[in-house]
Amino acid sequence: MTGAVVTALRSALGARVDTTTSALQAARADKSGHASAGMPLAVVRAASIPDVQAVMRIATDTRTPVVVQGALTGLAGGANAGPGEIALSLRDIDRLLEVRPDDLIAVVEPGILNGDLNAALAGHGLWWAPDPASRAISTVGGNIATGAGGLLCAKYGVVRDAVLGLDVVLADGRLLHLGHRSVKGVTGLDLTSLFIGSEGTLGVVVGATLRLRRLVPGEVRTLTASFPAVRAAAVASAAVTAAGIQPAIMELMDAASLAAVHALLALPAPAPGSAQLTIQTDGPAADLEAAAIAGVLRDAGGTVVVSHDAADGEHLLAVRRSMHPAMESLGTTLIEDVSVPRSALPAMFDEIARIEREHDVVIPTVVHAGDGNLHPNFVFDGPDVPDHIWAAADDLFRAALRLGGTLTGEHGIGVLKSRWLADELGDDQWQLQRQIKGVFDPLGILNPGKVFAP
Amino acid sequence: MTGAVVTALRSALGARVDTTTSALQAARADKSGHASAGMPLAVVRAASIPDVQAVMRIATDTRTPVVVQGALTGLAGGANAGPGEIALSLRDIDRLLEVRPDDLIAVVEPGILNGDLNAALAGHGLWWAPDPASRAISTVGGNIATGAGGLLCAKYGVVRDAVLGLDVVLADGRLLHLGHRSVKGVTGLDLTSLFIGSEGTLGVVVGATLRLRRLVPGEVRTLTASFPAVRAAAVASAAVTAAGIQPAIMELMDAASLAAVHALLALPAPAPGSAQLTIQTDGPAADLEAAAIAGVLRDAGGTVVVSHDAADGEHLLAVRRSMHPAMESLGTTLIEDVSVPRSALPAMFDEIARIEREHDVVIPTVVHAGDGNLHPNFVFDGPDVPDHIWAAADDLFRAALRLGGTLTGEHGIGVLKSRWLADELGDDQWQLQRQIKGVFDPLGILNPGKVFAP
Repeated sequence: MTGAVVTALRSALGARVDTTTSALQAARADKSGHASAGMPLAVVRAASIPDVQAVMRIATDTRTPVVVQGALTGLAGGANAGPGEIALSLRDIDRLLEVRPDDLIAVVEPGILNGDLNAALAGHGLWWAPDPASRAISTVGGNIATGAGGLLCAKYGVVRDAVLGLDVVLADGRLLHLGHRSVKGVTGLDLTSLFIGSEGTLGVVVGATLRLRRLVPGEVRTLTASFPAVRAAAVASAAVTAAGIQPAIMELMDAASLAAVHALLALPAPAPGSAQLTIQTDGPAADLEAAAIAGVLRDAGGTVVVSHDAADGEHLLAVRRSMHPAMESLGTTLIEDVSVPRSALPAMFDEIARIEREHDVVIPTVVHAGDGNLHPNFVFDGPDVPDHIWAAADDLFRAALRLGGTLTGEHGIGVLKSRWLADELGDDQWQLQRQIKGVFDPLGILNPGKVFAP
Repeated sequence: MTGAVVTALRSALGARVDTTTSALQAARADKSGHASAGMPLAVVRAASIPDVQAVMRIATDTRTPVVVQGALTGLAGGANAGPGEIALSLRDIDRLLEVRPDDLIAVVEPGILNGDLNAALAGHGLWWAPDPASRAISTVGGNIATGAGGLLCAKYGVVRDAVLGLDVVLADGRLLHLGHRSVKGVTGLDLTSLFIGSEGTLGVVVGATLRLRRLVPGEVRTLTASFPAVRAAAVASAAVTAAGIQPAIMELMDAASLAAVHALLALPAPAPGSAQLTIQTDGPAADLEAAAIAGVLRDAGGTVVVSHDAADGEHLLAVRRSMHPAMESLGTTLIEDVSVPRSALPAMFDEIARIEREHDVVIPTVVHAGDGNLHPNFVFDGPDVPDHIWAAADDLFRAALRLGGTLTGEHGIGVLKSRWLADELGDDQWQLQRQIKGVFDPLGILNPGKVFAP
């Protein structure tokens, strides 16, 4: 049977079907640290929407599971393809089809990299705001599939706020156009939003109409503030939000994160236990806002440095951007992604300190403090997450939920967090969501075992 | 059977069940000009979530249709209740439960008026951005059910952008909590967005966690610009957007609208054929933006007046706000709600001029020009929309779709536009949306005949 599937794919798609061991191995894993149980049947590098439709028709006819893949930069295992599955790569469907500065929209294919899109838009004085840390290497289609966020979200929004319409191929190969090109539109149910963050479980996103912004004029201002302990830094970041000032970026690094990055970059070691906020302001009020923020941070006990030089500011922000390489230098990393209301950040750090004590682990944590999205990192040896790490992560998830938060702010459920999904949704909503998936995917061939794993 | 339903309702809800003729008559019609075929079984004025659950359990047990109602200010007949139906009013469930300035969220019950909410939030220096023209008299729950917009949307967003979570009662009486209190969150499918704009077809919204903004500091600046013809005004408004300036409000009135309002307000008659843009800027750059916009408008042939006085600005905007009373003074009004990409506004006015000629009707039109949302008005005598008006409206809808637009920008499909829904969605998507409704409402008791009418 599996031989027949590959034969049918080859007959329809020829050389775009890749069954080399290197391709099949590469399709097993994203950047979550987790890999599937084995190699998929084939990797199909679709070059067009009709290619995608052909794959889905074969998949439906043969009841073969399909895992849609972009650049495989996900952090939840959502796009990992395994035995018996077709890995459907959209990476080569990557054109920027249309840019309309007068309507502030762009129409793109899913495989375009976020960074390449924004480089092209910059020439028009435009940008697409979602800015996951992976933006140089992740696709817009993947950003949509996960409902990605990033550093600038508190001020400029997440993917959900920046997509007007989607073209999708259903499990049976039919092509649908969801949403619209106009700013407003409430015709029927909002299936565009339903697809955003659906992680390949409802259909294949083959095109998107994106809502753009004009580039923000003027120079950014960058501040850093050191605090003797992470809780003080968390309190200070909440004070900035409570003061009614909206920075473009507000990142928090705890002591373990800061020490690891300083070691990686061969910078002088920070004072033991000290945590840091890195904040950028932009737009016409950038100077006024930076000054106001500096005041709030000093009142909160921070040692503040303000940079008026863009290059110097990028240098300060580079410390934050080096977090992932710094963690990778220490071992295998499980990057978590809980999100809480901003006022709950100090309480969440109390919980993290408790979990570190009770589970005897160190949890280096960075936070998009402007929106309350924490990335606690668990570092360990070997390829698989050990049980005692999962126990600590379980404790972390439950703490975030108790504080009014969520399991995942921007990475998705994928395969790594599906066992906690019903804890957050409740059993009734979990069943309802599975039934909605069933409407789109009655045969259960779209990314089975992900998100809604039984 | 219907007697048994009322008996069961009375047994569970006592005096909150109203079967007086005046109440039943009032429940037949919103402000669309359309009324249901007759009186519903009963109006239930729920006072709590358990009340709503009790009604839904009785409705499920007896297979009785339920129409959820707020303040009945809708413009598409979506909340009109008819024979054999229970009108479930949420108007009395209207508390502001929580305001968190530090997290920029509020938790509300559905019956609170948008205007009352914003009056209460102002004391905290906050506001909820969606501002339908009905905001003084429409409920937040109704705003959510229709996915409402308003005048400020191009700059500050619509309801979809301003809701983080919803509490909903399902058709069978179960209570679900959708979404979250954190800024970010991508756990499972985005059912919060699916409910926004679902017009009472999926469940009963009994609570909402709203995303707030800080009040914008400083004074607004107001400009008006007169143009010799509406097409020139449309071109000028598109030029403002294309110039990269973001006004808070940009409203366009065509000649027929302007003349009707001037007559109502006893103002001097405008020059024949002349159209007007009314624009407000706000925030720290309000003066600079007003000056830049004035330049663009003059270059586009407009006669521009800039007001730096807030009271004077409100006076200018009052002309726009008097549109609905002016139309009502002329006869029964069908207010349409198509939306197109902003660059297509001049082409849409060409289509409106063609439709006026070919159907021998006058279509006074006002536009939220900042986002391309047009409200063409059809005025006629008597209570029912005549066939020749529907023929002209049909032509209008198809023109909007051809230009990349949508049937409804912010009013919803309701009962008035359900026959065009499949034209926009396509048959495949229309069927899929009906199946999703079926997941939530397997017995078909939630607002039957609305949106997805067969």
